[in-house]
Amino acid sequence: MGIRIGIFGYGNLGRGVECAIRQNQDMELVAIFTRRDPASVQTIGGAPVLSADSVERMTESIDVMILCGGSAKDLPVQTPMLARLFNVVDSFDTHARIPEHFANVDSEAKNGGKVALISVGWDPGLFSLNRLYAAAILPEGTDYTFWGKGVSQGHSDAIRRIEGVLDAKQYTIPVEEALRAVRAGEDPVLTARQKHLRECFVVADENADRERIEREICEMPHYFANYDTTVHFISMEELQRDHKGIPHGGSVIRCGKTGENGENRHIVEYNLKLDSNPEFTASVLVAYARAAFRMSCEGQTGCKTVLDVPPAYLSACAPDELRSKLL
Amino acid sequence: MGIRIGIFGYGNLGRGVECAIRQNQDMELVAIFTRRDPASVQTIGGAPVLSADSVERMTESIDVMILCGGSAKDLPVQTPMLARLFNVVDSFDTHARIPEHFANVDSEAKNGGKVALISVGWDPGLFSLNRLYAAAILPEGTDYTFWGKGVSQGHSDAIRRIEGVLDAKQYTIPVEEALRAVRAGEDPVLTARQKHLRECFVVADENADRERIEREICEMPHYFANYDTTVHFISMEELQRDHKGIPHGGSVIRCGKTGENGENRHIVEYNLKLDSNPEFTASVLVAYARAAFRMSCEGQTGCKTVLDVPPAYLSACAPDELRSKLL
Repeated sequence: MGIRIGIFGYGNLGRGVECAIRQNQDMELVAIFTRRDPASVQTIGGAPVLSADSVERMTESIDVMILCGGSAKDLPVQTPMLARLFNVVDSFDTHARIPEHFANVDSEAKNGGKVALISVGWDPGLFSLNRLYAAAILPEGTDYTFWGKGVSQGHSDAIRRIEGVLDAKQYTIPVEEALRAVRAGEDPVLTARQKHLRECFVVADENADRERIEREICEMPHYFANYDTTVHFISMEELQRDHKGIPHGGSVIRCGKTGENGENRHIVEYNLKLDSNPEFTASVLVAYARAAFRMSCEGQTGCKTVLDVPPAYLSACAPDELRSKLL
Repeated sequence: MGIRIGIFGYGNLGRGVECAIRQNQDMELVAIFTRRDPASVQTIGGAPVLSADSVERMTESIDVMILCGGSAKDLPVQTPMLARLFNVVDSFDTHARIPEHFANVDSEAKNGGKVALISVGWDPGLFSLNRLYAAAILPEGTDYTFWGKGVSQGHSDAIRRIEGVLDAKQYTIPVEEALRAVRAGEDPVLTARQKHLRECFVVADENADRERIEREICEMPHYFANYDTTVHFISMEELQRDHKGIPHGGSVIRCGKTGENGENRHIVEYNLKLDSNPEFTASVLVAYARAAFRMSCEGQTGCKTVLDVPPAYLSACAPDELRSKLL
């Protein structure tokens, strides 16, 4: 029998987790929990769908619960609640609130004798790991994170809230010249505007004032005002045909110096190009579910992050196989 | 007082470790050990230079010994010997012999109650980590490792052994078209020749037959016969002026698929561009010396690799600082 997994929340991320589990022979999906009517939920692989309210009855049947709710409202409540009952993994990604989330989850996980891995994904997650490795190895240096080209859900939502907008998709795009300068080791100081462009595809109501919509987007504080923003008005048909994917990606780059007088320069870059942001994030969650299970079997408890997990714990392969094949 | 470090062996790598320690405020260099006459060794920072024979008298003064000898003859003997006396870190890089080296070091480290971290550097080392992370996250996919552009010490040495060659430097260069195809997700099957070029800069004795030398290089089995090789004859002055550096680098790329029917593609790339191969390797060794010290303080013993080390152990920063700043 493999590691018994539960999925809590079944949107894009939950479906991605369901698919990812099928790629890992040492895991089995026990149940999917939803707050909707379970009978209304159509899954990909036919796993049992149960009501979120019944989760407490499943503590003996599930080794790790993967939480697939949102960071704004779901996870701040769900992760502490479920960490008392299960080993859990979540993708909490509100960077500024991670310390608070960590503290809340840590006390519940310790009370329950469980392991909780939070903020698992690619940023926070794999990008964080790469910021850490590069900074520890090259203490004298500068870090850069670029995102995109990819869809920002938050920015797309912000556009959709404007009056007269029926639907919208926003792409975050790294500025090529900035990427070139960083990769060339020029150590540039870059403003938000110099690092990323924002390109918006907007479906407007036929009676709406497009000039006003474009102005409201470009002047929106925090989201767009500090960036060079391009707005394209397109039809609903075009949006659904050409912009249905959820691609994303980006780069973490560190430029550091070594030597007697810092005379040698080193560039470390980690780069992701993802066709599907939720499916890739789901694949990261599933690998860390394996790690959470192993840490729990060792007797560890409390809240952890990707920074605490020995890399070998992510792999289904045995340590000696990893050493002979991957090292 | 910081973590007390010893350096065993003082060539390019040892000098790199000496420089790297100065970038880490929580470490201090206690002594450098050499098999040469200590009085003949000129260090960069003025640390005490001691005879390798005196190392057993220093067990109480050193927390971690960083081994800076070669993988062919030094480390197979030195790492097991010193792992009984000290926590150690080495950069053993003969991939095929890692399991044997691991076993030898493991028993001595366990006997001595010490932690030994072997095969630390960038390949094996950071490249291994990236192969592991990407393969664990994307189980259905293909791995590629490219090296260079950089100096291969082994290939340069092989050329120097040819009669009539006074000195030589060999650069390993990834084939651009192969890199492009891999990054585009085309999943190509590549031969050795399709992945890397070899470019040689050779200083020949003025009476030597250059045609014969070029032929001997290009036909050399294992080293050059399976590659497209270019040979340039240059003067000793040109070699010393234009080819004195020891740059290296490369890329680890995984292309994997997710989704209900593998319909979404993801490309994960880790890339290094290093002005100085030994200084960068030294910086990796020093960060892992911190980890070895912490693992030893926890009571761990035996041989470990980078695959076993929780990433946070590499950093001088406290866990809560890492979570709030890097995660």
